[in-house]
Parts: sequence; C-alpha cells; structure tokens
Amino acid sequence: MHGLHLTADLHDCQCHARWLLDADALGAACLDAIAGAGLQAVGQLLHTFPATSHGPGGVTATVLLAESHLCIHTWPERRAVTLDVYVCNVGGDHSARAHALLDALLVLFSPAHTERHALTRGTVAGVDA
Amino acid sequence: MHGLHLTADLHDCQCHARWLLDADALGAACLDAIAGAGLQAVGQLLHTFPATSHGPGGVTATVLLAESHLCIHTWPERRAVTLDVYVCNVGGDHSARAHALLDALLVLFSPAHTERHALTRGTVAGVDA
Repeated sequence: MHGLHLTADLHDCQCHARWLLDADALGAACLDAIAGAGLQAVGQLLHTFPATSHGPGGVTATVLLAESHLCIHTWPERRAVTLDVYVCNVGGDHSARAHALLDALLVLFSPAHTERHALTRGTVAGVDA
Repeated sequence: MHGLHLTADLHDCQCHARWLLDADALGAACLDAIAGAGLQAVGQLLHTFPATSHGPGGVTATVLLAESHLCIHTWPERRAVTLDVYVCNVGGDHSARAHALLDALLVLFSPAHTERHALTRGTVAGVDA
C-alpha cells in the first residue's frame, strides 16, 4: 500500500468554462489524461452541483484507478479547482505516472496560481508496510 | 474552496474481514458514518478488485459529498486501509464533521497502527481564496 498522493489547489483558472461546468466533458478529459499517463481507470462517478446565487454549480469528477484514484472538484464562480492523484505502488512505482497525470490536468485548467503538495503514504515509521 | 483534507493510513486492522472485502457492506457503513457525522452524500461508487495469488482482492469505496469526498482503499492481504476525508468549508466550517467521520471509520477498521495527516487546502499564501 506504499504510494504517492499528489494534491493541487488551482486558482484563477484560465481554461474554457466547460472544464469547470460540464461534468461529462471533464470526465472524458480525465479518462484521456489517465490513459495518456499510462494509468488504468476502473470506474468513474460524476456529479454536478445545482446553481446558486453565485452562478452555475461546480462539478465533482472521480475516477477509480487500478492504482488508486483521481478526484477533481471545481468551483466555477471562483475559477478554482482541487485535484487529487493518489497512486499505490503495488506492482511497480507509479509515481512518474501520477506526476504526468497531474501535469496534464494542470495544462487543461491553466491556473494562474497553484498550491501543490506530495504525501508519501502507507508507511509506518518510514518502512514500507 | 478553503477546506480540510484528512488522510489516514491504517495497518494491521483488527476488524471483521467483511470491511476489507465486501464493497457493499463497506459502502453502507460509509453512508451510515457520513450521516452520523452530519455530512451529506450525493453519490457513491464501489469497486472490488479481483483475487490474486496473495488472496481475495481489495475494495475501493468512494462517496461524493456535498462537502467534497470520502475515499477508502483496502488491502486485505495486508489488513491495511487508506482513508481520505476532504471537506470544503463553503457554507460553514465542516472540520469537526470531517474529524468525526474519520474517527468513526477508525473505530470500524480498528487498526493497530495509524499514520494520520491533515492538509489545509484552497489557500494561496495563507489567504482563503
């Protein structure tokens, strides 16, 4: 269960509004990016939130991977997005693929500012369990 | 999009094997724990991985929340689990509910060892965006 969890919080995204609003389009783009990064999707769930007084609702796109998961949340009224790419390294080190997937999504959303973190997971006292 | 992302990597879980193997049972327990913590589920996706030479396959349970998401991955052959609880604090501070949900899941899985992290998300240079 040793793995790598990448997070990115995106601000002031310069992308076309469809990527913040259209769950089906975003879901298809996710599957393309996952395949392009060499990862394997095993399931997908999309949700569109209702409009509010601030404008159209955001979307959540989750893709279950053979290697773990991708989760995306959008806030179109703020042109903001959060990304999670988590890969477990059972069967091989997928870290480079996780970075490639995150990089592809950053190109898609084109944020003006991004806050990124990387968390090594599944170790106890630094020992791979 | 300011929020709190809690992660927990669980080792040597002492729970009944159903929580590591039975996606439907785990999914139902997730929904109960989410409701008990005062959070709102808006969608759920479960996946069971095929058995390997090491034994039965693990499961992934993802619940999309009005507040963001819950993701669980199990590795039954290692009695290991990873948990992600991410809540966005739009409309109120859901941090206490996120902790309550994580605590309920820790009781469910009863790990001998747990590695926990908390990440504040959606801020740029410490300013809520």
